[in-house]
Amino acid sequence: MDYYSSQINNLIEQFSTLPGIGQKTAQRLAFHVLNMPEDNVRRLSEALIEARTNIHYCKECYTLTDQEICPICKDPARNHRIIMVVENTRDLAAYEKTGKYDGVYHVLHGAISPMLGIGPGDIRLKELMTRLEGEVDEVIVATNSSLEGETTAMYISKLIKPTGIKVTRIASGVPVGGDLEYIDEVTLLRALEGRTEL
Amino acid sequence: MDYYSSQINNLIEQFSTLPGIGQKTAQRLAFHVLNMPEDNVRRLSEALIEARTNIHYCKECYTLTDQEICPICKDPARNHRIIMVVENTRDLAAYEKTGKYDGVYHVLHGAISPMLGIGPGDIRLKELMTRLEGEVDEVIVATNSSLEGETTAMYISKLIKPTGIKVTRIASGVPVGGDLEYIDEVTLLRALEGRTEL
Repeated sequence: MDYYSSQINNLIEQFSTLPGIGQKTAQRLAFHVLNMPEDNVRRLSEALIEARTNIHYCKECYTLTDQEICPICKDPARNHRIIMVVENTRDLAAYEKTGKYDGVYHVLHGAISPMLGIGPGDIRLKELMTRLEGEVDEVIVATNSSLEGETTAMYISKLIKPTGIKVTRIASGVPVGGDLEYIDEVTLLRALEGRTEL
Repeated sequence: MDYYSSQINNLIEQFSTLPGIGQKTAQRLAFHVLNMPEDNVRRLSEALIEARTNIHYCKECYTLTDQEICPICKDPARNHRIIMVVENTRDLAAYEKTGKYDGVYHVLHGAISPMLGIGPGDIRLKELMTRLEGEVDEVIVATNSSLEGETTAMYISKLIKPTGIKVTRIASGVPVGGDLEYIDEVTLLRALEGRTEL
């Protein structure tokens, strides 16, 4: 590709290393950058470096934060006796957006996946068990409803049961606003099994 | 969004200013960056600044380049008497990829669009006319086959005709490998009009 100059090629190449960005999108982004005000480009460039250098794991819950202890773990108004286990920080954010959960979190950074060679030792499970030595009433397992998420949930439940701490799993069923006609059978069966009295 | 730290929010915001990148994709990209090796983040960050600061328009054809005159305009092996007019540098690259065109280019950086308020004065038309004062045999109009591209092609043809220089338009028709069944009627009619003897 010598019909662009090396800086453009380099930028295209850099963009295409990002997930979900192919050659065409990388090209479109690169040309957009060339037409952006120089200040905006500088801001994007700095945001990359700053995020990468200042963000690390919270010492309590292992979410990504720029502080030693994240704002949620530091908040005395939250119930520190209820821990919701999620696969990653995006899932944490999804529950925070509901604004209704007032417990704290534990971020695993992954899920057990024999297929990908990710075992229990590769996610933050040991750290979760250490936290359970403190005063905890309930562990809510909110891993994804995928094969890996379910496997992880089962594993966690078996690990925690002997300690006597209550372990629960978020419900799986028909999403709100979902049309039964378009929902897969496994979900429909889950919804049936999980039915509650009206 | 105070469940992420400010650096993450800032990076998400910066990503979402790019075209075709919504809130969700920006989030995914930002978290990817946090997990990237620090060196790679630095390279992406620098590529942005370098491309933006070093790239400008070629003084001849107005393509984006890091030199005063782009490699194509500088190449004595190319036929400088044939100028292909394209809307942008990506279109130039598309023709360069064919490896079969040996003339030079003129990049308009846009197309006439009354809807978007882009008039003939907003694209590099005056610069094209200045180039035609030199020795030019043919101008090939390779603007897109869209309403704006066609309007621009018509305008250019009217502008150049009085000078006596030959003006041609790239053919429009059924794309190679295209199935007639799925091609729109306008294209089918164009293909019919543009039929050539076998």
